[in-house]
Amino acid sequence: MEQGDQVARAFVEHYYSTFDTNRAALSSLYQESSMLTFEGQKFQGAQNIVGKLTSLPFEQCKHSITTTDCQPSSSNGTLLVFVSGNLQLAGEQHLLKFSQMFHLMPTPQGSFYVQSDIFRLNYA
Amino acid sequence: MEQGDQVARAFVEHYYSTFDTNRAALSSLYQESSMLTFEGQKFQGAQNIVGKLTSLPFEQCKHSITTTDCQPSSSNGTLLVFVSGNLQLAGEQHLLKFSQMFHLMPTPQGSFYVQSDIFRLNYA
Repeated sequence: MEQGDQVARAFVEHYYSTFDTNRAALSSLYQESSMLTFEGQKFQGAQNIVGKLTSLPFEQCKHSITTTDCQPSSSNGTLLVFVSGNLQLAGEQHLLKFSQMFHLMPTPQGSFYVQSDIFRLNYA
Repeated sequence: MEQGDQVARAFVEHYYSTFDTNRAALSSLYQESSMLTFEGQKFQGAQNIVGKLTSLPFEQCKHSITTTDCQPSSSNGTLLVFVSGNLQLAGEQHLLKFSQMFHLMPTPQGSFYVQSDIFRLNYA
């Protein structure tokens, strides 16, 4: 597996397990320049983005990842990550299919933050 | 509508109408550095990418776009475009749901080419 793919899988695992257990902690993955498009609604900055994610109309959920694809983006160490999966909301049996993309930027500390995040439910 | 969104919608309309009517002509939208990840398979360069797209096991298809999301990517004029929609193959009634992302790079001529392309079917 290529290095980018390893980073992408580690990021995806971390992102969704944090989302499912402590959504407010996602703020550490975004910066002021970060952008989220959630079902067509646009948000910018870690605070606004996590404000949206923590005010979604369900308190508990569980993401299951079906596919993770990754490509390096240009030569500056950024990564494009594309995810598809299922989202189960607490108390509901029906699984919602979703797809999501992230543009990950390297930090000086050797980790990554999310510059771009686009999320869509794929209504079946 | 923001300028990036307008560009994204025009690109998406052009891309899928070309795909559905003259798939080989998609080669003009890719360059040698371009990357395609198609259902997890990786291809690089316009020739390899269009070779894959023109050898898919269906000759006729029709894409219907459900959503198009766009974000500017960093400050260099590139765009991230995220699409969801349905794909109908000739002779089949069942619609396949898909999602796809593009990283578009500006050309000196004022148009865009596809640097990154990631495609996934969302099996329902």
